Order: sequence, then structure tokens, then C-alpha cells
Amino acid sequence: MYRTHNCGELNKKHCNSIVKLSGWVHSIRLMKKITFIDLRDFYGITQLLIPTIKINIKKEYVIQIIGKVVKRKFPNFNINTGDIEIYVKKIKILNKSIKIPIDINKEYNKNKVKLFKYRYIYLRNLNLKNNLIIKSKILNIIRKFFIINNFLEIETPLLVKSTSEGARNFIVLYRKKLGYYYSLPQSPQTFKQLLMIGGIDKYYQIVKCFRDEDARKDRQPEFLQLDLEMSFINRKNIFNIIIKLIKYLLYKIHKIKFINIKILSYKNIIKKYNTEKPDLRYKVYELNNNKFKYNINNKFLNYKIYGLILPNYFNIVGINKDVIINLLKNKINKILLYNYKNNIINKLDNKVFNKIKLIKELINKEFFSNKDLLLFLILKKNKYYKTIKNKINNFLLKSKYLNNIYIPIIIYKFPLFKYKNGKYYSYHHPFTKPYNNKLKNNLADSYDLIINGIEVGSGSIRIDNSKMQNKVFKILGLSNNKIKKEFSFFLKSLKFGTPPHGGIGIGIDRLILSLLNKNNIIDFIAFPKNYLNKDLMIKTPSKIKNIKI
Amino acid sequence: MYRTHNCGELNKKHCNSIVKLSGWVHSIRLMKKITFIDLRDFYGITQLLIPTIKINIKKEYVIQIIGKVVKRKFPNFNINTGDIEIYVKKIKILNKSIKIPIDINKEYNKNKVKLFKYRYIYLRNLNLKNNLIIKSKILNIIRKFFIINNFLEIETPLLVKSTSEGARNFIVLYRKKLGYYYSLPQSPQTFKQLLMIGGIDKYYQIVKCFRDEDARKDRQPEFLQLDLEMSFINRKNIFNIIIKLIKYLLYKIHKIKFINIKILSYKNIIKKYNTEKPDLRYKVYELNNNKFKYNINNKFLNYKIYGLILPNYFNIVGINKDVIINLLKNKINKILLYNYKNNIINKLDNKVFNKIKLIKELINKEFFSNKDLLLFLILKKNKYYKTIKNKINNFLLKSKYLNNIYIPIIIYKFPLFKYKNGKYYSYHHPFTKPYNNKLKNNLADSYDLIINGIEVGSGSIRIDNSKMQNKVFKILGLSNNKIKKEFSFFLKSLKFGTPPHGGIGIGIDRLILSLLNKNNIIDFIAFPKNYLNKDLMIKTPSKIKNIKI
Repeated sequence: MYRTHNCGELNKKHCNSIVKLSGWVHSIRLMKKITFIDLRDFYGITQLLIPTIKINIKKEYVIQIIGKVVKRKFPNFNINTGDIEIYVKKIKILNKSIKIPIDINKEYNKNKVKLFKYRYIYLRNLNLKNNLIIKSKILNIIRKFFIINNFLEIETPLLVKSTSEGARNFIVLYRKKLGYYYSLPQSPQTFKQLLMIGGIDKYYQIVKCFRDEDARKDRQPEFLQLDLEMSFINRKNIFNIIIKLIKYLLYKIHKIKFINIKILSYKNIIKKYNTEKPDLRYKVYELNNNKFKYNINNKFLNYKIYGLILPNYFNIVGINKDVIINLLKNKINKILLYNYKNNIINKLDNKVFNKIKLIKELINKEFFSNKDLLLFLILKKNKYYKTIKNKINNFLLKSKYLNNIYIPIIIYKFPLFKYKNGKYYSYHHPFTKPYNNKLKNNLADSYDLIINGIEVGSGSIRIDNSKMQNKVFKILGLSNNKIKKEFSFFLKSLKFGTPPHGGIGIGIDRLILSLLNKNNIIDFIAFPKNYLNKDLMIKTPSKIKNIKI
Repeated sequence: MYRTHNCGELNKKHCNSIVKLSGWVHSIRLMKKITFIDLRDFYGITQLLIPTIKINIKKEYVIQIIGKVVKRKFPNFNINTGDIEIYVKKIKILNKSIKIPIDINKEYNKNKVKLFKYRYIYLRNLNLKNNLIIKSKILNIIRKFFIINNFLEIETPLLVKSTSEGARNFIVLYRKKLGYYYSLPQSPQTFKQLLMIGGIDKYYQIVKCFRDEDARKDRQPEFLQLDLEMSFINRKNIFNIIIKLIKYLLYKIHKIKFINIKILSYKNIIKKYNTEKPDLRYKVYELNNNKFKYNINNKFLNYKIYGLILPNYFNIVGINKDVIINLLKNKINKILLYNYKNNIINKLDNKVFNKIKLIKELINKEFFSNKDLLLFLILKKNKYYKTIKNKINNFLLKSKYLNNIYIPIIIYKFPLFKYKNGKYYSYHHPFTKPYNNKLKNNLADSYDLIINGIEVGSGSIRIDNSKMQNKVFKILGLSNNKIKKEFSFFLKSLKFGTPPHGGIGIGIDRLILSLLNKNNIIDFIAFPKNYLNKDLMIKTPSKIKNIKI
């Protein structure tokens, strides 16, 4: 037995007990006659008091100790075990460590080669460990939701057929026959539809999917997808499940009880926000452009003026409301604050422009209410022009104001096709049912889930008719030959009594980013690949000689 | 809305309600003036009464009806909804079906090409559907167990490095650089060890693994593995978790409360049962060989005589004990029954041999108790000689006697290496720690989990020392160059304070087979591949032109 307790659980109650602990040497402090060691394991840190300075132990050694729990003179309130320390009687080195090449307590630039190469050491970093813990919890919460709601978990194949639509597939060699291949799926799309044809009513799965595209902040070549599909449903039934899921998650993770999930058409979204994935936690308006006509002080000719609305600002509890204002003041060269509720106006105010008119215009344009905070930001032209949203985003994230706000949106009624370079492409994918089952309006019965500006998931009601499916393939420019080769079995399958069905695919890592207001999926993946899809730790992809295919 | 209720829930209480149902036409019966339809969905079957015979509806059409729930004159006790039927007022065809090419109510030979090709239709088969439901439940139970026991679910990569040890890997193309490849993992072995090095304490995952070997009854090229690893543990700690898991599963699935899990060394297992995966639910002894010396009647010179022990037979409740005896009597040309407890002897008995001596010998050789049933089987030589165990197994399975017995065994202390054609191979895998950390005895700190003769899982305590790991690679004949190329990063990782650790990998489908006493994993996989690793449904692998590799 390596331990009687872990390094995170001992407290006053255990005083005078003899315990056995195992873990890593987190730090060593040599005093006059004694040595202090912080012993670390997965569960925490416990202070060891060793009545000698003659120990041949270094940082990150794995040791096992037997000792007595004693009360500390000076408690450390930062750790769970801060009330006690262990008076060590026996010490044993379980394993040594050479000097570790990275500092596990430091936060590095995410793209640092060392971090990829020594990922297995950096897993000892507290933040990364906590990220893996919360990811594991979120996976559990999601699964529990689907069990409660009577979904069946069904695994689908990963060695599948390569088809021409969509992004690029990874290709897998079939060694029994030259020139023949499997591919790795971008999603279980075909299989989940076949499950519905096979009479399964509600399916879900958390499954690895693959895209042979370069990795980014929000994309890895292999990623977990929450995949679901339901029969005998329409779009509203799916929306209800998505809304229920998001509410369940926000409650289980953050104890948020009330959340308003907006459902908006693509047309309205674009008209109002000019983006497919708006972050409605704040709104930024450029004020000295054509849309806003007002008198501007000559002094500000070379400035861009933005109106920043923080919706519901005065209703949010638990944050220090001055923090964000001070933060913006410090970071942006000129800032004017206008608190619509209290009419507190920053002292810079007098020097500027007709804010009253501006506010009126904003009220007309927006659902600006007296719960919202309005700020005017005055920025030098060119300098911030393009990056203002990102900058504000970063400021707000740091202020923890945005961290407590979740505004999920379901966008529906997307275009069915987009036209580019003389060719039609599916806006969602070729299996999406036309809205009202009519092709002529170029509208799709598809939908996206956006949370705080992150595109979390995307789904649709599917075509359940072989003729319609064939028509769509033709519009997409697939030849009869190609349709036959790649989709003949699927077109046939639709003829055997296909129920109305639809579903959604949700990227687990993006969902986690949005639910925790984080911005890089690498922080939630134990062993990520770099931007060239390489695993620098295991040195993959690697050369293999004499591959016969 | 496609339905107010599903097809499995309506009963007497709903009488006179107006309901909307959707589903498949399971069967149609035309009567004189009315039509009966059995409407099927995922949840069950509901009888529809349509007051006309003029309907253009065929089997497997997807229809939606509105009607009134009425009490049936003649209840059908075989189905949940058997008390009622629906008097249909409106009927709508949601989708048609051409004639389906397989009978969804029939049990086919598993290898039938049609069954693979039309798998999506055969999913409508009741048994297959129920198998997928129980698999989903078992996955839930397993996950719940690991959540309760504070394991962290962590995903590991599927695009990994190809190494030379073990069975064949599937190779994946890296399109950015010619001659470079990923491979698909046979297990997350390396990654889970790196998680332990990274300070994760208890890891688990249900993950797809891959083997480029031909599919069999108990093997598919891609399969789900329950993978777990723990730090600061020894073999006994792992055994405890495995035992706890199996007990938890047997309780949750079968309400079995008491189960005795045997732990036996490899040496003892081989000595006693002459196989690595004994099925201890019954024991068969060949009695007229050298080991048993007794007087045999001349009449039986051309016969083989077997003693069949059914352990604990008289303690098992809930089965008709005569069934198995009658079954064996009918199937095997001569059978003698000896019930040790009640001294009831079959009438054939007198003509035969000295059974008393035989029983004494069996008692000496075995833990034969008065709870056990002993049967003598007298079989013509050559005829049954080699297949006797399989035959008896099949008989017993049909009798449902074996179906209610679960005898899990943990076998440990396997050989470390096996020697074949002038070369050493790992008995388990190269990362297995030598027993007592000593190479000279050729014993491994590894273990298998066997349930009812099925090899369900296999694991070990891992080498946590770089030098030992290097030594083992050398014994296995890996050149310095190969070690450097394939394992240098791993050998290095062991130097940064590796904790003692170990784990096990359990095949989900084999586990399910053993827990349900079934014998073909195809029955538990929605979309299996055939014996050539082809998916005949989606026609994969398929030809792709102009692939550069």
C-alpha cells in the first residue's frame, strides 16, 4: 500500500495520527536544522517537516513518507491541508527525476514548442489539471442529461467511406487490396440517419470526429462531438432539447437558474448584427459613421467613437461594477462613461459631443434599457479600428463581467445553398431538408447554436425522401456516376420507410469554451496537436518505410 | 407535432382519449369491412382498427394516425398495449417503403451478406434493438461506477505514432508530407502512462481502439475499450477495483448480490484447467484415460466416458433442474445421471461401471461438493471426442442453466516473455513490470480478467523505470536505432518522476457477451464489419484514385 491518505485531505481532525503519503516533491526549503517539503499529488499539497537537512531529494522526485500529523504553528489558508503538517519519521524515494525542462507553475504562450513536447509534464500544472477535471465533469453532466431524457448511446464506425462533400477526410490504408481505403469520419452523419431509418428513436453519442484541416484556437484535427438525432420530430422539438440541455448545463455548472435562449432567423441575425455568430453579451456600435449623424467636436476628427452597451449590467449580481469601468479607463486612451440609469457622467464629458442625441439614436436602434450600461469609447483612428471588438472582449473577460453572462442563441432558416465560382455548395450539408420542403426559396431547415459568440453546434432536419436527396446532389453538381458510387446505398436506404428526423452535432471543446468563457481548446485537451496537426510529444506523423498499398 | 404518445405506452387508462401516433406498419390484416394494422415504433406496437379496407398502405410504410383509444374485445397479453386498440379517424402516409429485402422478424445466420448490407433495416429486429438498448445501459452503468469511484474521464488521441510492437496498426496518411503517417491506436497504452507521469491519479475512458486483423466472433477491427489506469497502486488495488466493477455490474444488470471472484496464478490455472481462459461454470473430465483407473464394462470399450460437474447446481434458484437433464438425455446417445445428493441413479446405471470409485476419484481431484451435480456422459469415440465441450456448452446455454451463473476469475503472474523461433516476445506487452521487479524469473506483474471462459480484459503494473524499460526493449530484440526512433521520448518521460502505476483494458463487447452469456459481438454493434473488415452496407473500403502516399 502506497498511502493511507492523499495529499489533499488531512486536517486538524487527523492530528496525532500516523499516516503514509506518496507524491511528488513540489518544493524544498532547507532551514537551519530541518527541511520543509511540499508534497504534491493529484488531490493537493501537504507540508512535510523532516528533522534533518541531509536528504538526497530533489524537486519532482516521487517519494513515500510515514509520519505523524501535527498542527502547524502558522496555518496556510491557501491550501486545504494548511492547518497541519507531517512530522516525517520514514522517507523512501520511489522514483527520481532529472531536472524538468518546463516550469509547471508558469503559464506559457500556448504555442510554445516545449509545452507540446513536454505536455506530459505540463499536465502537472494546476490550471491544466483543473481544466481536465471540469471537462470530465461536463462530459458526465451531458451524459446524465441524455440518460434522463431516454436517449440511447450507440457507437458508430470510425473506419468509414470517403465521400467528396465537405472538408477533407483523413485516409486510412486497407492492406488487403491495393488502391482501396477507409476514411475517418467528419461526423457520424450517415450512420445516425441510418439509425433513424432502423427505428431507433433518440440517439446520442460523444464521439471522436476528424478533419484534415490545420488546427486553430477553436479547432483540432481530431475532436469530440456530441452527436444526437431524433425521429418523428420537427425543428421545434430539437430546439427544445437543445434549450433544455444548455439550461441543464448552466445550472449544473454555474447554478444559473434563469436563462433566456433567443431563437432568431438567419436573416434577422445578419441584418441586426452583421455576423453569423454574434456575442450578445455586449454590443459595440461605431458612432461616427453614416448611420449616426451628430455633431462632433473638431477635437475628435481623428478618432473613432464607439458606443459599448453592456446589456443587463445593473441586474447582474456578484461582480464589482467599477472594475470594468476602471479597466477600460486604464486600457483605452479616452473613455466616456454614461450610466443611463443614474445619469452619472464622466468628467471628460463636457468636452465632447451631443451624447443625448446619440443615446436617443441607440435607443431607437436597440433594445437599450435602463438596466444596461452605455459607455462611449473614443479611440484614435486606425490604431484600434479593426481590433476593437477583440480588445474589448479581452478587457471584459479580464474584468470577469462577461464571465458570468451566457447568451445562447439558436439561429435557424439558413440559406440552403451558397453560390461561389459558378457552383452551388451546401450551406450546412447535403442532407439538410429544404425549409418547408421547397427548394425554390433557397432556405434550409437547419440551425446553429451560438453561445457568447462561439459557434458551438450545427444541425438540421434531414431530407427523408430519396428523390429530393438526389435532386440536391444534382444541384451540388455531383455526376450520376459519383452519386451512384458514393451515395447509391444511402439513396436506396431512404426508400425503406424513412421517418421524419433531424439532429445536431455539438463540438464538446467549443461547448466547454463557451460554458467556461475560455478561448483556446488546447487548454482542455490532454494531448493536443499543433497548428500543423503534429503531435510534437510522440513525434507524429512519422516516417514509415516500405508501406505497401 | 408527430405524435401525442408513442406506440408502447397506451393502456386502459387512456380509453376514449384522442391520440396521435406515428410509426411503421408492422403488419396489415384485411377483414371483411375493416383493416387491422399493427403500428410499430421504437417503444412498442399498438393495434389500429381502420373502418375500411380501401387503404393504399403497405408493410413498413411510415404513417401518422389520429384516433380514439378503445378497449379491445380480446386483449393481447404479449404486448404492453394489448388491452386497447385505436379506432382510427385520420390516417396520413409520412413516407412509403418499397418491399424490404430481409425479414426483420427472422433470426438469420450472422454471416449472411444481406444482413450486413441491409443492417439499417435489420436494426428494426426486436432482438438487435434490445441488444443495443442493453449495451447503452451497460455503458451507463460502467461510467457511473467510475464517476462514483472518482476516476477522471480523459480523452486520448486516435491519430498516434506507429510502433513495431504488437498486432498490426491501421495507417493514416499525412497529406502535408509524403511518406509520413499517423496510425490508429490498438490501445491508449502510452498516453495513459503519460497521464500518470503527468500526475493524474485515476483515469478511465471508453475509447475506440483498432486492430488491423480479420474480424471474428469476438473481434472487430474497431472496438470499444474500457481503459483505466491508476497511480500509487499495486496489483491488489487494481484487483479490488476490477472486482468491485464486476460486482457492481452483476448487481445492476442481474440483481446478483453475492459473487465469488477467484484470483489464481497462471501456473495454477494451467495446471488445473490446461487453458488460459477456463469456464468454471461447468467442468468436464475425460474418465477413461490414464488419470482415472477403474474397471470398465467391455460394452463401453468403444465409448468415451465423461464426468460433467455442474458446480453449485442444487443451490441455484429459478431454473427448472430437470430441463438440463432431459436436454442432455435427448441430445447425447447414452447418459447416466448421478445425483450425488439424492443418490438417484438413472435406470441405465446397473449395466455400467464402478461409479462409486469414479466419484471418489473425482472428489479427490476436485472440490466436488454435495451442492454439485455430477453426470456421466457416455459417448461413441471419435464422434464427439473433440467437440464435446462446445456441444455441452451449447446444450447448457439452451437450458438456461449456464445463463444464470457468472464465474469471473482474475489470473495473475503470467510469464513475462515467450520464446518463439529464436526470438522473445512479450506475453502481455513491453510495458509490463517484471514480477517483483526481477527479470530472471520470467514472471510478469500482469493479469487477465476471465468471465465464464471469455477473456474480457488484460492489464499489468507498468515499468516505471527508464533503465528497466530499455532492458526489456533490448530483450525483445529492438535495435538501439529502433528504440531511439520509436520510444526515445517515452524512455525520457519515465525519468521525470514516474509514480508506480498500473491499469487494465477491458473489451466492452466481450464484457457484454460475458455478462449476458452471449457469444457473438456482432449482435451488440449497430454497424459491424465482416470477416474481411469490410462494411458491406456503405461499401467500404472503397477505391480512391490519385492518392499519393
